[in-house]
Amino acid sequence: MTSQRLSQQLAFLTEADQLKTILRRTSLIHDPRKENTAEHSWHFALMALTLAEHAPVPLDLPRVLKIALIHDLVEIDAGDSFVYDTSAMADKREREEAAAERIFGLLPPDQAAEYRALWDEFEAQETPEARFAAAVDRLCGMLPNYKNSGGSWVEHGVSAARVTERNRPIGVGAPALWEVAEGWIREAVEKGWISE
Amino acid sequence: MTSQRLSQQLAFLTEADQLKTILRRTSLIHDPRKENTAEHSWHFALMALTLAEHAPVPLDLPRVLKIALIHDLVEIDAGDSFVYDTSAMADKREREEAAAERIFGLLPPDQAAEYRALWDEFEAQETPEARFAAAVDRLCGMLPNYKNSGGSWVEHGVSAARVTERNRPIGVGAPALWEVAEGWIREAVEKGWISE
Repeated sequence: MTSQRLSQQLAFLTEADQLKTILRRTSLIHDPRKENTAEHSWHFALMALTLAEHAPVPLDLPRVLKIALIHDLVEIDAGDSFVYDTSAMADKREREEAAAERIFGLLPPDQAAEYRALWDEFEAQETPEARFAAAVDRLCGMLPNYKNSGGSWVEHGVSAARVTERNRPIGVGAPALWEVAEGWIREAVEKGWISE
Repeated sequence: MTSQRLSQQLAFLTEADQLKTILRRTSLIHDPRKENTAEHSWHFALMALTLAEHAPVPLDLPRVLKIALIHDLVEIDAGDSFVYDTSAMADKREREEAAAERIFGLLPPDQAAEYRALWDEFEAQETPEARFAAAVDRLCGMLPNYKNSGGSWVEHGVSAARVTERNRPIGVGAPALWEVAEGWIREAVEKGWISE
């Protein structure tokens, strides 16, 4: 006999499976197929775990990991908004708010509130954990482009200036990682993958 | 200037990306394509986070999440061994030991030792965290089969007796979840998806 609580949790986890069908603009590092958001979330969490020591202040690491695991679930309804697509970014917040309401709402109320609070924390970017998570999320998005001669930057004709502007939050959440990212952007220009 | 330590961490994280290309035997819940191990690891971690309250004793949840994130990395070299394939299971341990040595060995020594210890803990099944992780990992594998009228159980002609035998560790790591799993197996027999 499955309790109502456990049934709700399993319904949420069944719905969550859909994140494996949401495609991002970046490709895998060693394979040209596009990355899906579920596998990205795993890579993001592993990256946060592995690079946590580079945060500028000591972190509540479990909270960072939880943020990494749940923050993209809203894409099941709202899709992945390509960061260089201005029109898609315009109503992103509204679409994602509705998605958060529905998807976290599948859970028992206390867990729905907990996951929603983690998602809100990430969106608000006011805690060191949220800022470090955002830094790692962006570094995670840059890595396949750097490893693949510019990847989706080249595909979409994005300049170094826009890559820099877009990824500057890395410098807020993790200055040591921003040094790395800036090096990647410089190298992308030097090698002629993208324009300044 | 990227420190040697950070370079090693980034080399590990770049290599880890390969887990997205390792296919499992189970399909997605809402899509017939086979699941890869990276997205499975995400689903496993999310499931562990969401179902932690059903563990028989209070857990060190961050350790469970770390185990979920790193325990399948060995499949990059060793591949996914289908649990009902006796020959593949025979030399699984040896192949995975070598893989753990190489893949965790990309990291700085202290982190290599930490990740290796987490992997060893999972394999040894001696702590409540390792047992709960194993329970959730198996429940995670059962879910798409249950949701897809038997899925890979039907595809490979696996009986209810073998599914029960294989997944019995769920009962050790999380008795409350084993009740659910047993209900799924009973239903699979009643609906004629699999034989007893």
